[in-house]
Amino acid sequence: MPGHLITLLTDFGHADAYVGVMKGVILGIDPSATVVDLTHDVPPQDILQGAFLLGTAWQAFPAGTIHVAVVDPGVGTDRRALLVQGGGHTFLAPDNGLLSFVLPGDGGKGDPFQPYTGPVPEGYTAHSLTNQRYWRHPVSTTFHGRDIFAPVAAHLSTGAPADDFGEGVSTLVRLAVTEPRWDREELAGLVMHIDRFGNVVTNIPEALTKGGQVLTMELGGRTLQGLATTYGTGTGLVAIIGSGGTVEVAIRDGSAAEVLGVKVGDEVRIRRG
Amino acid sequence: MPGHLITLLTDFGHADAYVGVMKGVILGIDPSATVVDLTHDVPPQDILQGAFLLGTAWQAFPAGTIHVAVVDPGVGTDRRALLVQGGGHTFLAPDNGLLSFVLPGDGGKGDPFQPYTGPVPEGYTAHSLTNQRYWRHPVSTTFHGRDIFAPVAAHLSTGAPADDFGEGVSTLVRLAVTEPRWDREELAGLVMHIDRFGNVVTNIPEALTKGGQVLTMELGGRTLQGLATTYGTGTGLVAIIGSGGTVEVAIRDGSAAEVLGVKVGDEVRIRRG
Amino acid sequence: MPGHLITLLTDFGHADAYVGVMKGVILGIDPSATVVDLTHDVPPQDILQGAFLLGTAWQAFPAGTIHVAVVDPGVGTDRRALLVQGGGHTFLAPDNGLLSFVLPGDGGKGDPFQPYTGPVPEGYTAHSLTNQRYWRHPVSTTFHGRDIFAPVAAHLSTGAPADDFGEGVSTLVRLAVTEPRWDREELAGLVMHIDRFGNVVTNIPEALTKGGQVLTMELGGRTLQGLATTYGTGTGLVAIIGSGGTVEVAIRDGSAAEVLGVKVGDEVRIRRG
Repeated sequence: MPGHLITLLTDFGHADAYVGVMKGVILGIDPSATVVDLTHDVPPQDILQGAFLLGTAWQAFPAGTIHVAVVDPGVGTDRRALLVQGGGHTFLAPDNGLLSFVLPGDGGKGDPFQPYTGPVPEGYTAHSLTNQRYWRHPVSTTFHGRDIFAPVAAHLSTGAPADDFGEGVSTLVRLAVTEPRWDREELAGLVMHIDRFGNVVTNIPEALTKGGQVLTMELGGRTLQGLATTYGTGTGLVAIIGSGGTVEVAIRDGSAAEVLGVKVGDEVRIRRG
Repeated sequence: MPGHLITLLTDFGHADAYVGVMKGVILGIDPSATVVDLTHDVPPQDILQGAFLLGTAWQAFPAGTIHVAVVDPGVGTDRRALLVQGGGHTFLAPDNGLLSFVLPGDGGKGDPFQPYTGPVPEGYTAHSLTNQRYWRHPVSTTFHGRDIFAPVAAHLSTGAPADDFGEGVSTLVRLAVTEPRWDREELAGLVMHIDRFGNVVTNIPEALTKGGQVLTMELGGRTLQGLATTYGTGTGLVAIIGSGGTVEVAIRDGSAAEVLGVKVGDEVRIRRG
Repeated sequence: MPGHLITLLTDFGHADAYVGVMKGVILGIDPSATVVDLTHDVPPQDILQGAFLLGTAWQAFPAGTIHVAVVDPGVGTDRRALLVQGGGHTFLAPDNGLLSFVLPGDGGKGDPFQPYTGPVPEGYTAHSLTNQRYWRHPVSTTFHGRDIFAPVAAHLSTGAPADDFGEGVSTLVRLAVTEPRWDREELAGLVMHIDRFGNVVTNIPEALTKGGQVLTMELGGRTLQGLATTYGTGTGLVAIIGSGGTVEVAIRDGSAAEVLGVKVGDEVRIRRG
């Protein structure tokens, strides 16, 4: 019987052996675990991008998967380390907003992408990782991925109950992301991510585009009409519903982000007609 | 008993979680599969390089391996998705030439690297992936790696027969690659690939070099005499039989491609003497 | 029962399929092996960095792990290929110094980072890989990772005894790395590595810092006072004990290596007061 699935998402890159070290710790505790990389190229300490990428990936995994996310500029400070469970999945991460796109929206407002403290959503539980019995010792102040998150993931995988890892908590840190909505004839969204192909991914869900035929989109000083159904049919820039279910802008054989000169956080406006 | 081996080759890069997502889908269907990355750094939408790299790798795997290759500029259009079997291996890929270096040569002519439609080679079978029962739903128009190729690979791995995935087909798209041959005293080949070390890999097989002692090679305006037996013995540029069994040009402690100023598609000429 | 753990560390990068090919060979021989990447982004042919990174990683793995390290500028020459065992782990590598930070120090002196031949340390055994029965044939002169190291690792994993792979040897190549020690009121160390975050990792162990409160460190023309306990508390450059147990220099939200203008091999001086 194959063991649990454990995913890893970090900003550790590939040039060092940090990720391999986490796998060594995990497999030393649970040799039957299957460890899968989501990405390790989150820009250094970029919690928003880490959160976004985790949000694009976790639902592709079966229930029971343990997701470990480490983008952790506050490592070694008194920021909490969390174990969050809900929807059949388990998440381990520093308490800094990295789980923002995993959890259901709570209507949290504020400047987009700024952290705030909100309640643990209904249907979810959260524990603070304080039980040092499950840690690797000595614990460094710079690499909790190796010394706390990896061993906790592996012990969870072998069946230790969530309550054993630390006390329950009722709040956690989230990033404020205003959800786009139609305001009369206009809708404002944000660029969330630029992918490897230069595709510009927004936070505007397909449901708000109502088919897309009579939409006009503005970003980067350019105007696009309607939604395409494939990258392959367009010439020039095309708007399309991407694999995450939101509007994205692409260009065949090139980088839409470069053509448009846009970056994460830039505004996208859609109007009818 | 360990499950099937499934390899992945894409142009998805490592900065997004696209590859991790494919693995989540596969392991959700077949938890006993072992998934191995060939490479995900194929230059975006570069079918030729994807095909070449797949050609260098698949034979290192045991019979029964399922190879999934996704370099797919036509995703979402009516290009077919294929399941090809032969030589004990299974290949899943868009029908765009990506399997050109896996299949035996069929003498297809034309401008090098241009796609054409040829017959499925003897000893091979091909099916078009049309049975939506094996797909992940809803199917996006931009990420068939997640929604078609990954679930089909996993269902194959768990034992579903090839016939179940769609109707048999008798032709497929290939890239024209003229095979080098001696024409009197001269042989013309092509640069196929530049590797990480800057080694210049050609399509001239060892068998055509007849030992190499009395050969003169010309590329990038430079002339090289004979074949070396190791990188370590040469000073300056050396021609050598590379790990893929073809002539390549290297330079110790540097990039031969940079020194020569050559790129994929450039001509290499060999003559006797 | 899960099979053995096999780790891979190379300078093969990710753009080619070389690493995937090694995994295909391993899993073809031992389908139950679990293969873990340490890193494949060692700078091309940089034995020192490969050795350092292997040194940071191997102890995170459980006893019984087989570590395969291939940074091998002398591939195809008469440099030996080694199987070294000790401390419960097995190492496979070319005999070029790549195991320098895995083995206990032997007091070897000389210019830092220069290779020399030393005795196999007490408690360790070493064999030269000469038994071609365990190799993949035909053996290329350019890719012993595929043709010698991978199949040997897999056969070891399935239970073949070390003695079967070749004759025992009593010496091996190491890199000279002077160990820092206090000389009156001063201690001189070296920059060993720059990591993904731009952290400057030295070879000065925590034990020599005696708490750090009254230390002054000089590198790159800058002076730092004392040791911080987290990245998070500092403003500007901070010295800290890194995850490998040695002094490193970091800066929040930036690259300390860039700020300092230092590189591997540069000197670091510490004095009291």
